Amino acid sequence: MRRQPLAHDITMRSLAAQLLITPSALQELSHEDAAKVAAYMGHRTIAAGSVFMREGDDTDCDHLLLVLEGELSVEHHPMPGEDKQLVVRIMGPGSLIGELGLLDGAPRSANCVADTTIEAAVLQRHDFLRLLEEDPRVGTRLLLAIAKRMADHLRDSSRKLKLFAQMNKVLSEELATYTRNADSDSQT
Amino acid sequence: MRRQPLAHDITMRSLAAQLLITPSALQELSHEDAAKVAAYMGHRTIAAGSVFMREGDDTDCDHLLLVLEGELSVEHHPMPGEDKQLVVRIMGPGSLIGELGLLDGAPRSANCVADTTIEAAVLQRHDFLRLLEEDPRVGTRLLLAIAKRMADHLRDSSRKLKLFAQMNKVLSEELATYTRNADSDSQT
Repeated sequence: MRRQPLAHDITMRSLAAQLLITPSALQELSHEDAAKVAAYMGHRTIAAGSVFMREGDDTDCDHLLLVLEGELSVEHHPMPGEDKQLVVRIMGPGSLIGELGLLDGAPRSANCVADTTIEAAVLQRHDFLRLLEEDPRVGTRLLLAIAKRMADHLRDSSRKLKLFAQMNKVLSEELATYTRNADSDSQT
Repeated sequence: MRRQPLAHDITMRSLAAQLLITPSALQELSHEDAAKVAAYMGHRTIAAGSVFMREGDDTDCDHLLLVLEGELSVEHHPMPGEDKQLVVRIMGPGSLIGELGLLDGAPRSANCVADTTIEAAVLQRHDFLRLLEEDPRVGTRLLLAIAKRMADHLRDSSRKLKLFAQMNKVLSEELATYTRNADSDSQT
C-alpha cells in the first residue's frame, strides 16, 4: 500500500475536497472546510483484490478513508428475511470508510476488499487531532459532520435491530407451534 | 417539567460535573472540562410516571439529559400486533440520554419513562453550539467523548445485528426442516 501526503498533489487534494462534501460523505461541510481538511489528508493506492481492512484488526486502524477512484466491497449486515448471513455493499468514489477508527483507533468492525485498484485520500487520527488543535473551528465542523453521520447509522441500526427482534419472535412462535404439534402427534 | 439554569445552582452543577465523567457518561473528560460543560447545562425536574421522550417526537428533541437523581426506563415502540412495550433498559444517576438529538435535533428513536421523580442536567443543542463557539477546545473534547460513545454503541449494534442474523438463520432452517417433514408426512 503506497502512501504519500495529499498536500503535495494538488489534483488529488482538490478531488478529495470535492468528494468530501458529496451526500455519501460529509455533505454538511462547506467547500472551504473541505479544502482545509483535504490539506491534512494523505494519499493511498490500494491494489485490486487486497483485503485492506479486516474485522477485529487492531493494527493500522486509526484512519478514515475517502474513496477517490475505484470500487470496494464492505461486508454488510443483512436485513431480516435475507437468506445470506452477510451481504456485501459496493462502494465507489465519495464513500467514506473507517470513521470509528478515526475517533478511537479501536479494532475494525468489518472487512473491506478492493474490487479494483483504489485511489483514496486518508485522514490519520494524529492528523485529525492536529487539525482539531490547529484549526478548532474547521476540525469541530468535521467532527460534527462525522458524529451526525454516526447518529444516522445508529438510528438505522436501531430500526434493523427492532425488525430482527420482531422477526425472531415470529419465527420462534411458529417453531413452538410445530414443536407442540409434533409432540401431540407423537402422543396419539 | 420544571426547567432552570444549572449555573445558578452550585450543588446541582457540581453534581452534574461529577456525574458527567463516570463510566456511564463521558469518562474521557477531565474534571475541569466537566465543570465547564456543566456551566452550559440547565436543570430539569421530571415527574414520576411521565413519558418525557417519545419515539418519533420531532419537537423538544434537541437536547441531551444527564440523570442526577432517580430512575427511568428506555422503551421502544411496540411493533404492530404487539400489545406490550418492550422495556430495553433501566437507567439511573450518571446515565446520559439523547445525545443523537443533541447532534442533529432529529426525532427521538425511543420512549423514555420516568420510573421515579428525576432530577436531570440538560444540555440544549443551542447551548452546546454556544460552548463550541465560545470554548472550542472544551466543546471539541465533549464532542469527541460523545462521538466515541456513539462509536461504542455502533460496534455494539453491529455485534447484536450479527447475532440476530445468525439466530434468524438457525430458526429459519429449523422451521424449514419441520415444514419439509410436515409436507412429506402429509404425502404418505
